Amino acid sequence: MEIGILGSGLVGRTLGAKFLELGHRVTIGSRDAAKPEAIEWADAHGAAATDFAETAESAELLVNATAGIASLDVLLSIGAEALGGKVLIDVANRLDFSAGFPPFVTISHHMSLAEELQHAFPSLHVVKALNTMNAPVMVAPERVGEGVHDVFMAGDDDEAKSQVADILASFGWHRDRIRDLGGIAAARGVELYLPLWLELMRNLGTAKFNIRIVGADEAETADDDGA
Amino acid sequence: MEIGILGSGLVGRTLGAKFLELGHRVTIGSRDAAKPEAIEWADAHGAAATDFAETAESAELLVNATAGIASLDVLLSIGAEALGGKVLIDVANRLDFSAGFPPFVTISHHMSLAEELQHAFPSLHVVKALNTMNAPVMVAPERVGEGVHDVFMAGDDDEAKSQVADILASFGWHRDRIRDLGGIAAARGVELYLPLWLELMRNLGTAKFNIRIVGADEAETADDDGA
Repeated sequence: MEIGILGSGLVGRTLGAKFLELGHRVTIGSRDAAKPEAIEWADAHGAAATDFAETAESAELLVNATAGIASLDVLLSIGAEALGGKVLIDVANRLDFSAGFPPFVTISHHMSLAEELQHAFPSLHVVKALNTMNAPVMVAPERVGEGVHDVFMAGDDDEAKSQVADILASFGWHRDRIRDLGGIAAARGVELYLPLWLELMRNLGTAKFNIRIVGADEAETADDDGA
Repeated sequence: MEIGILGSGLVGRTLGAKFLELGHRVTIGSRDAAKPEAIEWADAHGAAATDFAETAESAELLVNATAGIASLDVLLSIGAEALGGKVLIDVANRLDFSAGFPPFVTISHHMSLAEELQHAFPSLHVVKALNTMNAPVMVAPERVGEGVHDVFMAGDDDEAKSQVADILASFGWHRDRIRDLGGIAAARGVELYLPLWLELMRNLGTAKFNIRIVGADEAETADDDGA
């Protein structure tokens, strides 16, 4: 598939490398088509690098890996025509680092970043996913250890979520640990989880962790647990 | 120990029953000392029931199990003198149900409920804990299944947190799953986790679940996991 990744930072490059490894074609987009790091990375990995608009136009499926505080502006600069009715996996978090670390998650209790993007582009199929872990874990869940753990999805379009679930499974996520939380408003929960994630990272001394839901479906996953 | 529980709703009564089972003396406090349900419960369980102020005065250790939107008013009505330098375990969530279900968590990104209580009463030792699960799970973690799972603490006073950790352990929490996230500001993370908890409850169809941190300390807990 033609994958367009908006954002050429660590998250975008990590996802891009995984999509390439899985046999997809990848274009990585930056504000500036001539961004040296993006071109260098694309050349080294057999991908393409260009600006946001061309990335969106060429892609069958888009990933929003831009900084969350800039994401809406990026999509507005691309415009509704180029975005069309594509699927956009939104992995971003709306973090404000202006006061240092830890950053604040600057969404309201009534509007997540994913909803904001969905409302601005009603034809786009936004699926929130993968924002609850760091990039190396997103593309290789086995990195956090032997036990299964959970990844969440939220979005209004069931077909789009089914496509995203297939992608997550191709990354190595257990099918029964890909949890569809419902419509795009459910992105609020996973975006507001970020402050706890940041505190856990600081306290655990590593970003290589995730959470696992315990109790609700122990019956189905009893084989995963022997304690 | 003399335990004073502020709030005679389901959470307060569930915690009260557990403290009684563990051999503590319990007073359960309501706005109105003559609240029939509280008196009835206290009589049936061998506890005392009175108003908030008397509950606070008689207690060595306090639990805030009031509705989060009312908690600050409750403490203000008690006053700094009766609260003194006691330990207060804050299990509340600042939920606004005025627009129906799911409620909104009405804290700002810069001030959690626990911090608000701590700032209003600097001598009080506020420890945030147990707000990330439902009451039956708080007092009996084994209810969610066989695997270990996590409970969080945040507070500025190490001695108070150590006392709360002992209480959590007496409830059945694994010592290495009682996670001290740091000072009282870390209450933001666990309070902002509530929207995800509410979405999970709706999707899982049960409140009898919890989360387990996976990956960070697999080495120590390898025996808990065989997947």
